Amino acid sequence: MSLIEALNWRYATKKMNGQPVAQEKVDQILAAARLAPSSSGLQPFKIIVVTNPELKEQLKAVGYAQEQITDASHVLIFAAWDNYTEERIKSVFAFTNAERGMPESATADYVSRLLGMYLGRTPEENFNHAARQAYISFGMAIAEAALLKVDATPMEGFDAAKVDELLGLNDLGLRSVTLLPLGYRDEAGDWLVNQKKVRTPVEDFIIEYK
Amino acid sequence: MSLIEALNWRYATKKMNGQPVAQEKVDQILAAARLAPSSSGLQPFKIIVVTNPELKEQLKAVGYAQEQITDASHVLIFAAWDNYTEERIKSVFAFTNAERGMPESATADYVSRLLGMYLGRTPEENFNHAARQAYISFGMAIAEAALLKVDATPMEGFDAAKVDELLGLNDLGLRSVTLLPLGYRDEAGDWLVNQKKVRTPVEDFIIEYK
Repeated sequence: MSLIEALNWRYATKKMNGQPVAQEKVDQILAAARLAPSSSGLQPFKIIVVTNPELKEQLKAVGYAQEQITDASHVLIFAAWDNYTEERIKSVFAFTNAERGMPESATADYVSRLLGMYLGRTPEENFNHAARQAYISFGMAIAEAALLKVDATPMEGFDAAKVDELLGLNDLGLRSVTLLPLGYRDEAGDWLVNQKKVRTPVEDFIIEYK
Repeated sequence: MSLIEALNWRYATKKMNGQPVAQEKVDQILAAARLAPSSSGLQPFKIIVVTNPELKEQLKAVGYAQEQITDASHVLIFAAWDNYTEERIKSVFAFTNAERGMPESATADYVSRLLGMYLGRTPEENFNHAARQAYISFGMAIAEAALLKVDATPMEGFDAAKVDELLGLNDLGLRSVTLLPLGYRDEAGDWLVNQKKVRTPVEDFIIEYK
């Protein structure tokens, strides 16, 4: 199945049937998410994977009671860095240089420029930038799930502060950004499954300068 | 090629060879971008496609002189709505309902809730939210390009205000968010092409609550 076919197949599943997703497939979805590009390669986010039933119930309670959170076998939470710090940035480049067999000096000038940029911004500005990177990865997870015919419901509708508290994200320097419950559609119980997929017409969506 | 193989193949191409990308492939990349999910299905962004050589030169001048902008045959600019407005939101749902053969009343309550949420926020908050949606689509474009073995360079490093001015985006109610030059790698001239791809180790990137 091509990505375009997969994206036409997928939809924001409203009702899941409770069938669990095999861990192997979840691992592939996470692998695609981890391979997503990010600004300067910083990957300023993590993914929390919740399979624990009690914790899913608690997530649902702060997720506007959306049933997919408990009907899904796995709930992914994309959580972005709450700020860019010198320690975090230097740590990423130290690791990258080590992996590439390069000296620290190889990226010293570049890191200095990044520090000059990020450390002059507010934590909120930096969090917003980090969150955008998480959205690229969120997209890759959605794409890979669709390619594997795993259903998913991209969610922004939840109380982020309460999710952060529930998962102890503040202590990890993270803030929740999006949720992605993974499972399988309940065709009989889902009002959206047979609705036409609608997108902005190409002529309105694309502007060409030839 | 699987998405994971494609994401391992791709990299932020630093030097392109000038070979043009076939329009058919660009259209597939745009199709994947257009199929990306977005919050409430609003798709609050557009994609500008620049092939005009003079305009690419001008983009490069406000894009920190990055050569990929002119060596690419097509430069995609992802531009988000500068705000959510009643007219824009209602227009999307009017179109969606018409496409689905549903009456306006089908989504009236939902639209009222959306208006209550977005119209109470500042334009900057709404733009930031719209920009996040554009990043999902940006991710889909990057994924599809990689699957087609088209090289791409995801870029945030440009003077957004000047890009907006150059493309007349303010008059369209849009603000540029990311650039994606499309082309083919120049293996001999690209310092990054043979560097190891480095990502945060899985054990640091994923947190499991079982």
